[in-house]
Amino acid sequence: MIAEFSIVPITGEESLSRYIAIVLKQVKESGLNYQLTPMGTIVEGECHEVFALIEKCHVTMKNHANRVLTRISIDDRGEDLSRMHRKVESVLEKLYE
Amino acid sequence: MIAEFSIVPITGEESLSRYIAIVLKQVKESGLNYQLTPMGTIVEGECHEVFALIEKCHVTMKNHANRVLTRISIDDRGEDLSRMHRKVESVLEKLYE
Amino acid sequence: MIAEFSIVPITGEESLSRYIAIVLKQVKESGLNYQLTPMGTIVEGECHEVFALIEKCHVTMKNHANRVLTRISIDDRGEDLSRMHRKVESVLEKLYE
Amino acid sequence: MIAEFSIVPITGEESLSRYIAIVLKQVKESGLNYQLTPMGTIVEGECHEVFALIEKCHVTMKNHANRVLTRISIDDRGEDLSRMHRKVESVLEKLYE
Repeated sequence: MIAEFSIVPITGEESLSRYIAIVLKQVKESGLNYQLTPMGTIVEGECHEVFALIEKCHVTMKNHANRVLTRISIDDRGEDLSRMHRKVESVLEKLYE
Repeated sequence: MIAEFSIVPITGEESLSRYIAIVLKQVKESGLNYQLTPMGTIVEGECHEVFALIEKCHVTMKNHANRVLTRISIDDRGEDLSRMHRKVESVLEKLYE
Repeated sequence: MIAEFSIVPITGEESLSRYIAIVLKQVKESGLNYQLTPMGTIVEGECHEVFALIEKCHVTMKNHANRVLTRISIDDRGEDLSRMHRKVESVLEKLYE
Repeated sequence: MIAEFSIVPITGEESLSRYIAIVLKQVKESGLNYQLTPMGTIVEGECHEVFALIEKCHVTMKNHANRVLTRISIDDRGEDLSRMHRKVESVLEKLYE
């Protein structure tokens, strides 16, 4: 499945890039296919792998702030593990049909 | 922590209440404190309990539709397990100060 | 349509209830049907009314913080303006069928 | 500000790419800076331009389905209009520090 998530620690620092780097490090270590966007991190993997990774990232961020806001969007079509790039291509094809 | 989630199966049925009832049944069985709103289900519990419940609900919904869209918002302040109602009260107090 | 939204100013204050009260004040002034939940504010109204209200609340919050994170979920079924409470009732009926 | 959005018509069609192409067409016509991701469309512009575009896309989708679910996430730091790519670069720099 594909999931996008963003984890925001309420620390008073306006710049969050340092914290996003902490999350991204764990995403890379997971070995899952991923993409960093201006609004979050998109990962692709088996359902349980993805939930476990996001929970781990959330728990890690709790070490950096007492309050953490996490937002997750999941698109689970289940059939395979290489939809992430094809989804974008599929839209672009229809746009130029 | 407090989390709100909504799980939408893409089945072609416009009414989703039958599917929300399936989710709510599992939420009730979990024993966690919960609230059903017009836009989703809010649950409160330890971090791992909440992630496990939402993953279980998502996996269950995959039995009803090939494609499932799930949206989760988490507010983790960690310190206790009875914030759900106090959060609303705290806002209302400030509104009428 | 029904929409839930949450507006988080990045100010360094861990408690956000003061800011939620500012939003809620504008929601009340709009005259729209609303419900405050532990995770956000749910409003119901015509499409343009709801978008205008949320934009207004977001712009107001920019007076309180340089960085503001806003999250909106919309469920637009269009046909009428009193679904907010019926949605919850409809699920509960199916749960106990 | 930067906003990501996704608009899902409940039509019974499992593939949504045809509908995302309709949204993307309007995004391109708006002239705003944008990026299509596997989970949504990210746009960058002045606050009112972005709200107006997303409302327009949502209303257009209502012509294709009686029920439409829209999800929006906004990150408004206000100061300039070219953060979209710098946000990703800023994280990557910290990752490799």
